[in-house]
Amino acid sequence: MSTVTPVDWQARPAPRSAEEWIVRAADVATVLATDAAARDQAGATPYAEVQLLKDSGLVTLLGPTEHGGAGQDWTTAYRVVREVSKADGSIGQLLGYHYLWNWAARLVGTREQWEHVEAEAARNRWFFGGAVNPRDADVVVTEDGDDLVFTGRKTFSTGSRISDVTVLEGVFEGTEQHVFAIVPSDSAGLTFHDDWDNIGQRLTESGGVTLDGVRAPWSSAAGYVDKKFRPRIYNTLNVPTIQLVFVSFYLGIAAGALQTAATYTREKTRPWLHGGHERAVDEPYVIDLYGDLTAKLWAVEALTDAVAAEGQALHDDPDAVTEQTRGDFEVRVAAVKARATEVALEISSRIFEVTGARSTASAEGLDRFWRNVRTHTLHDPVSYKRREVGRWVLSGELPEPTWYS
Amino acid sequence: MSTVTPVDWQARPAPRSAEEWIVRAADVATVLATDAAARDQAGATPYAEVQLLKDSGLVTLLGPTEHGGAGQDWTTAYRVVREVSKADGSIGQLLGYHYLWNWAARLVGTREQWEHVEAEAARNRWFFGGAVNPRDADVVVTEDGDDLVFTGRKTFSTGSRISDVTVLEGVFEGTEQHVFAIVPSDSAGLTFHDDWDNIGQRLTESGGVTLDGVRAPWSSAAGYVDKKFRPRIYNTLNVPTIQLVFVSFYLGIAAGALQTAATYTREKTRPWLHGGHERAVDEPYVIDLYGDLTAKLWAVEALTDAVAAEGQALHDDPDAVTEQTRGDFEVRVAAVKARATEVALEISSRIFEVTGARSTASAEGLDRFWRNVRTHTLHDPVSYKRREVGRWVLSGELPEPTWYS
Amino acid sequence: MSTVTPVDWQARPAPRSAEEWIVRAADVATVLATDAAARDQAGATPYAEVQLLKDSGLVTLLGPTEHGGAGQDWTTAYRVVREVSKADGSIGQLLGYHYLWNWAARLVGTREQWEHVEAEAARNRWFFGGAVNPRDADVVVTEDGDDLVFTGRKTFSTGSRISDVTVLEGVFEGTEQHVFAIVPSDSAGLTFHDDWDNIGQRLTESGGVTLDGVRAPWSSAAGYVDKKFRPRIYNTLNVPTIQLVFVSFYLGIAAGALQTAATYTREKTRPWLHGGHERAVDEPYVIDLYGDLTAKLWAVEALTDAVAAEGQALHDDPDAVTEQTRGDFEVRVAAVKARATEVALEISSRIFEVTGARSTASAEGLDRFWRNVRTHTLHDPVSYKRREVGRWVLSGELPEPTWYS
Amino acid sequence: MSTVTPVDWQARPAPRSAEEWIVRAADVATVLATDAAARDQAGATPYAEVQLLKDSGLVTLLGPTEHGGAGQDWTTAYRVVREVSKADGSIGQLLGYHYLWNWAARLVGTREQWEHVEAEAARNRWFFGGAVNPRDADVVVTEDGDDLVFTGRKTFSTGSRISDVTVLEGVFEGTEQHVFAIVPSDSAGLTFHDDWDNIGQRLTESGGVTLDGVRAPWSSAAGYVDKKFRPRIYNTLNVPTIQLVFVSFYLGIAAGALQTAATYTREKTRPWLHGGHERAVDEPYVIDLYGDLTAKLWAVEALTDAVAAEGQALHDDPDAVTEQTRGDFEVRVAAVKARATEVALEISSRIFEVTGARSTASAEGLDRFWRNVRTHTLHDPVSYKRREVGRWVLSGELPEPTWYS
Repeated sequence: MSTVTPVDWQARPAPRSAEEWIVRAADVATVLATDAAARDQAGATPYAEVQLLKDSGLVTLLGPTEHGGAGQDWTTAYRVVREVSKADGSIGQLLGYHYLWNWAARLVGTREQWEHVEAEAARNRWFFGGAVNPRDADVVVTEDGDDLVFTGRKTFSTGSRISDVTVLEGVFEGTEQHVFAIVPSDSAGLTFHDDWDNIGQRLTESGGVTLDGVRAPWSSAAGYVDKKFRPRIYNTLNVPTIQLVFVSFYLGIAAGALQTAATYTREKTRPWLHGGHERAVDEPYVIDLYGDLTAKLWAVEALTDAVAAEGQALHDDPDAVTEQTRGDFEVRVAAVKARATEVALEISSRIFEVTGARSTASAEGLDRFWRNVRTHTLHDPVSYKRREVGRWVLSGELPEPTWYS
Repeated sequence: MSTVTPVDWQARPAPRSAEEWIVRAADVATVLATDAAARDQAGATPYAEVQLLKDSGLVTLLGPTEHGGAGQDWTTAYRVVREVSKADGSIGQLLGYHYLWNWAARLVGTREQWEHVEAEAARNRWFFGGAVNPRDADVVVTEDGDDLVFTGRKTFSTGSRISDVTVLEGVFEGTEQHVFAIVPSDSAGLTFHDDWDNIGQRLTESGGVTLDGVRAPWSSAAGYVDKKFRPRIYNTLNVPTIQLVFVSFYLGIAAGALQTAATYTREKTRPWLHGGHERAVDEPYVIDLYGDLTAKLWAVEALTDAVAAEGQALHDDPDAVTEQTRGDFEVRVAAVKARATEVALEISSRIFEVTGARSTASAEGLDRFWRNVRTHTLHDPVSYKRREVGRWVLSGELPEPTWYS
Repeated sequence: MSTVTPVDWQARPAPRSAEEWIVRAADVATVLATDAAARDQAGATPYAEVQLLKDSGLVTLLGPTEHGGAGQDWTTAYRVVREVSKADGSIGQLLGYHYLWNWAARLVGTREQWEHVEAEAARNRWFFGGAVNPRDADVVVTEDGDDLVFTGRKTFSTGSRISDVTVLEGVFEGTEQHVFAIVPSDSAGLTFHDDWDNIGQRLTESGGVTLDGVRAPWSSAAGYVDKKFRPRIYNTLNVPTIQLVFVSFYLGIAAGALQTAATYTREKTRPWLHGGHERAVDEPYVIDLYGDLTAKLWAVEALTDAVAAEGQALHDDPDAVTEQTRGDFEVRVAAVKARATEVALEISSRIFEVTGARSTASAEGLDRFWRNVRTHTLHDPVSYKRREVGRWVLSGELPEPTWYS
Repeated sequence: MSTVTPVDWQARPAPRSAEEWIVRAADVATVLATDAAARDQAGATPYAEVQLLKDSGLVTLLGPTEHGGAGQDWTTAYRVVREVSKADGSIGQLLGYHYLWNWAARLVGTREQWEHVEAEAARNRWFFGGAVNPRDADVVVTEDGDDLVFTGRKTFSTGSRISDVTVLEGVFEGTEQHVFAIVPSDSAGLTFHDDWDNIGQRLTESGGVTLDGVRAPWSSAAGYVDKKFRPRIYNTLNVPTIQLVFVSFYLGIAAGALQTAATYTREKTRPWLHGGHERAVDEPYVIDLYGDLTAKLWAVEALTDAVAAEGQALHDDPDAVTEQTRGDFEVRVAAVKARATEVALEISSRIFEVTGARSTASAEGLDRFWRNVRTHTLHDPVSYKRREVGRWVLSGELPEPTWYS
């Protein structure tokens, strides 16, 4: 990111409202946009980008104000992820995952734990990564005195290499009891592999990680009191909460695709030889497609905002969350996911029809939007999201809480 | 509507909030739903249905509380139209048009005029119709002493036959200057033809009307002061305001289609012979389609709610409306219209795939949803709605205010 | 059909090739088109229409030339059904079902039987109906001397009321052994109910039928020799053969919708007020939609023709049909069905967008195309057709022959 | 292509029928498929691949048998391009363009000229490239004695670098008169730039070319007799003929995508954790999507075959081609192009939904199908193809012959 003009964020007035934080995110996006295509092609580890997120204050958006955080809520966090992703879907994903891992303390931990984690995270501007991938054979956890010891392997661990702290997840040996703990990312025994080489979201550092006896004190075992886990329904809000993160960067990428394409159409696309128009922007088919894609995007954005607000009501009163309110929220999120997936894919593939043949030059990098959306929307099959909605409509059935529903 | 069990609305507690009014609308819908298919097939003039709207209080939803109205705003009105339309798209359309014609006084008239009209309308529970169709050769208006005299013909005049008052529209002879006036629907010279026979929205009484020297006092010429019209930008909010009415009943019809179909699937649809499932509701393709259609509907509903709120902000401060804010709103409404049209058509056509062959029996009347949506979505070409959005995206161009944009 | 100008078919040269027979079918369609909307609305029993099919020679298209038939094959029959259906989907369905029931003798019967049936049918210009609906509780067959006696009820029996002969189907009492027999439609004990009242294909006379001891000689039990059925793979070609009949009238209806709409657009649709075009046919969105829908239709038509030819190769050498060739054909037909369903629904619903608001007048009857397609495409769930194709692609699995696959 | 096992084509029996040539093409595809993803990523100039096309005999498929060609027609050539493109869209495009440039002699030249060119081409197994791009400022042609001298630049010149001969195109100085000539690709003054770096069809060597006084004898000026061009309608068949080449490799790429994906699904895709199936190939949504995409592909393939046959009828009798038959063919081709574009994009983007998250690994290279289709389908706006069809349907208008219609 050496080509990016540095910004003196301190010299700018600090954002004080949700709307101002969204503007701040847009400012960050402007910086990222200047060389987004080139950085995607280079595929370097995004140290500078993460520093930008820290310097601009976005990293501590959800942090407590008394410790230097912005004290915003999830509705704003989702909007911020969306803004950043307009310029760079990878960085948007990293930021969104960071929010979730930071929030994991609150989702799973005791009040004492999460207050401690959130204070430390805000004060030190920690960037969170996670070594949590439920489809892998689980990491095994053993006890050694006051410590827990994590051993095993996770295939995907988004953000780990550029993080300050990492959320580990494993299963106590011989049980099916999961445990989460936060450890410094430079902990002994924690090795991040540089093996993420996929067609999209190339800067997310989502490679594998090996846990070779990584130690964490029992006290950091989230939600454990006297070595016993105290489950509550609020724990299971992790899935819809992170799935709205996913949606937020899908929509950001789609909006970025549309904006980038519109600029290209205005500035570079030639009107068709036999169309009788002097500018590409006057061609009926061009206008029609921009209108159609924009309308589709707006609809999913509005649904996302509405469902984010529904989720925030649950986050505002964690102890009041019931199976019904959790289930209804999950179903709504499933619907958002289904729509966002379809619309983001359509937009990122069809923009070329209104930018034209020359816009396929590699240097333009217009294909990164589709590659980014295509890659992450496979996280879990969208068909199962529609299934959640369909069953709820037909039978009132609530999705069973799993790592994916 | 003789088969409908009468409801003693007076015996029920009066709604006091937006949410309670939406519940009231749902109660009205429940009444209408009991014989909606049969009433659609009979095609009789909906006197009883309009009486139901009056008795339940929905007719005076937007009216001033000091005169017996509910004092609600457009965001609630749209939701009410949507609820009613779940059971009966025609009645939803009549109610929505009524709201607009009632509101026309405020859009076009002087403060004195609209305060008078709204007070009278609320006190007398007037049901409004309109003889306004800009695609017709215009009705000619002449002066006769203190009266205006309207002469001519309008092809479509929704609601006229069952209305108490009718909004007339015409052009002063030899000019291009339009004038609106409200007259009693039983005024001399006003003849409503019973010639609405279309495939959908069959109970809307949208037939032609002849104006044979219909008189209205100059004082009722909306927005005229000393016989001169005082235009303001707020006048032009009529189009996006009514277009959101359209969308509201499209979405209501679509939601009604989905609900009616889901009930049918649960209760009557047989599982496929060779599918290996014991109930239709367990068939993967059935679940998938309900999930897909529901997600699509929710997205447009959310966009509608969001845009309705944007519009309400303009209605809240009419004098502050600028060309830019009006134009941005119109563009957002155009997007809603485009999406609602597509989604409502898809839902109302595809529900059959999950209700099955026997659900095509005429007695079920499941085709009325598609016929209703198909008919009214042609009001103006949806292609031009996408054009508004596309131009705005590409060039920042605001739609020129016309009767359709 | 009293309004139809009678045609003196005898005065015209008899068609001598497949192409000429398709022209003949188009001529019949021209006659049917003159009052198709009115006849659909009237819903009268189509005696005159069936007479037209007989007089024009279409009824004996597949019949042996030595007995007055035209000696054409299935590829032509499908095209003829398509042509007729452009004007009237109901009559196209009746004709297509007739071809199948007439052919049933060859599919299931012994050579002696089908040669006899085909000769009689051609000589007497029999119109075939069928009382065969496998989803019903089966009709029970008992023996009485040399006769079989059929007793029971079928819910749907296309064409029965206007037929000369009816194919009965039942199961021998206490067994699962099916038997087919052809009986005169005026046989004692055979009662056709006039209870077909569905939203589409209104003239197909697809109502219920009661079999109250209907007798047929043992010798007419198709495929039975010495009271034992001799199965062969060719029997199971009934399903793909009739499913291509279905597709043929779907495509005919779709083509008819497109033609009827194009005429309407040319002659009646007004250009949009704010579109800047003097004729509707010059509007870009109008041109685009006709182009899009036509291209979609052509693709399915071409696939239908190709698959019809593949099927004809099997019909040409019935004894050579293997499980593999039968299965491959069935899968190809399943694909055609899936595409035809989707495209015919899209065309019949979307034509309105390019004919405009006034085209929803009931008198125009433009909704009949959608109602017709919507009704019959539910015959069996199209999802299971995609399943056949998908399994074949993924695993090479052949569909198990049933009444629907 | 060093990793490809060499094939001793001479040792195999020479194909003798269209079907055998298609099998031969499939054999070539098998060779290309072994390292298609790797070659795409390497992006090296495809010398070895072109040699493969020569050795296997595909290069001389259309050549006269008396000079060693296979004497096949365009219907087979299209199928061959489709087969090769299943493995490698770039090589399919090169081969298809080669066929067209080879055929250009016949389309534009005198009988003497094309007989000479075709004989030489077949005997020497020439591979043809073209420096013909009508959207560029034209190359200027001047006379110098018996020579024509070409000077200028073309932006795109598919295949040029790996060709033996190149078709040049230019305009006589000061006129609008075009001229084509075939020259050796190593002619003095002909410089191929290595500047094709686009997201798809990466091996097509479609970079720019500079013509710095390239000389060709007057006698090679195609269609010129005594320095005057003798136009005929058959000349204008170049557009639909090459557009069917485009479609052929789109469909080949799409079929290859589907096959490659199906293999992946069978061998690597894991069933969903919460789906209750033991194999991915048993998941209903997986089966459904393969069924749906296959049906869509088959429909366009069938239309392509049908239209290719219609075109062959014109090629079979060039002098009989009329404006009407040429126009009808062009419209049919336009429809094929529209459908092939949409379906190939859908298939190449959606396959991932049934291969799953891990299939986005760069090493799998599954994105190349979408990148290939996306790149070339922008050759000319598909919207204008739909326009050709739409106008023809509405008004019977034939497309004016241009370089794109």
